[in-house]
Amino acid sequence: MKEKKIFKPCDLIIYGALGDLSRRKLLISLYRLENANLLEPDTRIVGVDRHAGGNAEFIAIVQKNLQEFLNDKIEDTVWQRFSARLSYLKIDLTQLDQYQQLKTVLDSKARVAVNYFAVAPVLFKDICKGLSHCGVLTAESRMVMEKPIGHDLQSCKEINDAVAKVFTESQVFRIDHYLGKETVLNLLALRFANSIFTTNWDHNTIDHIQITVAEEVGIEGRFDYFDKTGQLRDMLQNHLLQILTFIAMEPPVNLEAKSIRYEKIKVLEALRPITLNNVDEKTVRGQYSAGFLKGREVPGYLEEEGANVDSTTESFVALRVDIDNWRWAGVPFYLRTGKRLTNKRTEIVIYFKQLPHNIFSDSFRDLPPNKLTIHLQPNEGVDVQILNKVPGIDENIKLQKTKLDLSFSEAFKKSRIFGGYEKLVLEAMRGNPALFLSREEIEQAWIWVDSIQDAWQHVNDTPKQYQAGSWGPVASVALLARDGRAWEE
Amino acid sequence: MKEKKIFKPCDLIIYGALGDLSRRKLLISLYRLENANLLEPDTRIVGVDRHAGGNAEFIAIVQKNLQEFLNDKIEDTVWQRFSARLSYLKIDLTQLDQYQQLKTVLDSKARVAVNYFAVAPVLFKDICKGLSHCGVLTAESRMVMEKPIGHDLQSCKEINDAVAKVFTESQVFRIDHYLGKETVLNLLALRFANSIFTTNWDHNTIDHIQITVAEEVGIEGRFDYFDKTGQLRDMLQNHLLQILTFIAMEPPVNLEAKSIRYEKIKVLEALRPITLNNVDEKTVRGQYSAGFLKGREVPGYLEEEGANVDSTTESFVALRVDIDNWRWAGVPFYLRTGKRLTNKRTEIVIYFKQLPHNIFSDSFRDLPPNKLTIHLQPNEGVDVQILNKVPGIDENIKLQKTKLDLSFSEAFKKSRIFGGYEKLVLEAMRGNPALFLSREEIEQAWIWVDSIQDAWQHVNDTPKQYQAGSWGPVASVALLARDGRAWEE
Repeated sequence: MKEKKIFKPCDLIIYGALGDLSRRKLLISLYRLENANLLEPDTRIVGVDRHAGGNAEFIAIVQKNLQEFLNDKIEDTVWQRFSARLSYLKIDLTQLDQYQQLKTVLDSKARVAVNYFAVAPVLFKDICKGLSHCGVLTAESRMVMEKPIGHDLQSCKEINDAVAKVFTESQVFRIDHYLGKETVLNLLALRFANSIFTTNWDHNTIDHIQITVAEEVGIEGRFDYFDKTGQLRDMLQNHLLQILTFIAMEPPVNLEAKSIRYEKIKVLEALRPITLNNVDEKTVRGQYSAGFLKGREVPGYLEEEGANVDSTTESFVALRVDIDNWRWAGVPFYLRTGKRLTNKRTEIVIYFKQLPHNIFSDSFRDLPPNKLTIHLQPNEGVDVQILNKVPGIDENIKLQKTKLDLSFSEAFKKSRIFGGYEKLVLEAMRGNPALFLSREEIEQAWIWVDSIQDAWQHVNDTPKQYQAGSWGPVASVALLARDGRAWEE
Repeated sequence: MKEKKIFKPCDLIIYGALGDLSRRKLLISLYRLENANLLEPDTRIVGVDRHAGGNAEFIAIVQKNLQEFLNDKIEDTVWQRFSARLSYLKIDLTQLDQYQQLKTVLDSKARVAVNYFAVAPVLFKDICKGLSHCGVLTAESRMVMEKPIGHDLQSCKEINDAVAKVFTESQVFRIDHYLGKETVLNLLALRFANSIFTTNWDHNTIDHIQITVAEEVGIEGRFDYFDKTGQLRDMLQNHLLQILTFIAMEPPVNLEAKSIRYEKIKVLEALRPITLNNVDEKTVRGQYSAGFLKGREVPGYLEEEGANVDSTTESFVALRVDIDNWRWAGVPFYLRTGKRLTNKRTEIVIYFKQLPHNIFSDSFRDLPPNKLTIHLQPNEGVDVQILNKVPGIDENIKLQKTKLDLSFSEAFKKSRIFGGYEKLVLEAMRGNPALFLSREEIEQAWIWVDSIQDAWQHVNDTPKQYQAGSWGPVASVALLARDGRAWEE
């Protein structure tokens, strides 16, 4: 085992410190890292916004914020340590001159400046200009951003270009919080440290793969943002494609960022394009109508607060994705994600092929195939469905589906399961880029997604209705049924 | 699913009804089958022996016997049903004329005669003659026998020949009670109903296989019998080789007796002979000396009651077995069995190959291979050791061995786990031969075992000493260490 590495402390500058992202996620995660003693003693956190007045007011807001979103008691001693790191700068991000204030708090000799862009992308260019103008950046400085990084290839490139004017690619940390989840990282371990899976991970043994990211939530006041985006661009372009690359990539040479990114890009490049020619058979768009969610009546998409009643934006998407490479020839990946579905559930299901010959036809006319399920939400865990003899002394051997099971919270009772966000914020502060998205990756994903979006635009169909609380439109079932398959229920 | 089959009732005739085998195993199993409502209503049980006087005395003995060996309360209603089936014939098995009494109880039109030879093999010839003489056998009749079926090929053939004079091979049911165990039968399900194992079951993916049948018991008054036999012939020739064939056989065309036996014989024929040339490197013989078993002092083999103090009989044997066929080329099977070992434990461990490349060298310099363990005793179950990411937000991905687990008693709480013996007695009464040994099989096993025994005879070494309560002689460790491997602890 290696010795514990010493990391250089940071000045973590949060642009938009009073915004939603910062308040609901970032500050909460930082407090949790503090609680777990994972922040370097000299690391400081600088809130930048234009709404609060000064340090005291900012710290009071952070405290109130923790009370609201932490879901746990605030420990006095932890809060003492944490609040001592906090400071605040009142900056209007559009005003170049105001960035000079950064000089009063940053110390590039003692600490690495980690610039967290927790604001709308329209401001990214301004921040970059301001940072450049005030001359606080060094070769060590980093910037962190997260979705939406554009809503198509063009807008994504604009953001990346603006950022690239002041940060080199190795200084840029693009977050997809799914990549911080235990189970996604565990995919690397499962796939590349276990021969029983390694030797079973291609078109010879796998029939197809399903990735489901199901949300219970509806739009909840974000209609303005979401209606311009839709589920394809808001969820699938990033989270589902990221999960897909981790499942599908070739073994990387090692665990370094470069090696992993290289393999991920190869997968994205191998995605068979979905165009006007095949969009009807490969995609399903859905939009929820009023329904019931766990007994509670909920409105339809077009009845949400602030809804545009003519909207044809999709709140559900299901795709059949083919990967045109040696490993995955003939193995479809079915992806689906939507809002107002039956349960909050994120999972990957690997369906192995049926055996070529069945000697247990007394039990099963068709032997159910083995299935590896990787649960990401609500609980993280792994299980393998196998067929087992039913104990008993019947004259025939009767089989039954059973599970070889590994629930993370059961198996690792002592370890706290950290959220994806905490993991990634920490990695950004430590300067380890392996779990962040490269420019090439994210742009490649947009190229593929733009093609779908363009095809939809062309076809100009309205999305299929599905009742809130269901598993999406009937067409989603048909998508798999046409291939003789069914979604995992 | 098929409908429940109706089986023809039996006259189960137990020769040696008052002997050890009948009292400790057979009658107990029959009672349990009664308790589970698995005996056909019209089935009768006829005890044959020369010690008891008549029906009443026999029934009283059976009841007393249940009280002693059942390990459970005798249910009144079950006992009523059970005892009503019992009758007794006082027959001296060496006296041809006395077999005429069978005619008074058997009814070959209404019931199948199942002749259970629960006596020493020296009497088999007499029973066969008696049955033939009194003319009660029909083409439907069956005979059941169990180990020892000879102590070498020659004596085994003599028994089989004597039996073959009155029973065709399809009427003969040779019991190995290991073949009735849930986990052994489950091997068929695991191997041939699960693609993740099926595709991982050969020299490409498996490094080696270990089979351990460890006993805590010593000789316990059976010195006379055991000292002439030894562990190789008493345990390995039958139980361990049977387990080996189930692990190693090619997929049978179906589950019929003929198909399974055919594949098992092919394995036995492919066992690489152990002869004078390789006996030293392939085998270890051991004999226990005095020691401690779970804190209790126990005598050595030569100090057992009735011991021949010059005995060189082995109470422990370990072998490296090679199977010369396509599937198993280069994959050794290590077998060990012994008395007075640390624990009572029967298990099969499949060690998969190490992965060709390790990207997790921060966690493990050498990745521990996956391991499938099939537990037969003390508890039946299956688990797979895999490597998993340790939850946590360390900068490196740390791996940890964890288990995907299936304990039979946990998973199948509702089902009673039947003993192997009950299963096989029932199968014999039902006339299903799939789980019984064919003549060809058992003789082929003797050919292979005789070669080892002959080589030992020639070398004329004394067995290696091992302390009671240990895992056998040091030489057993060395057997695997020479190949860079170690026994499962």
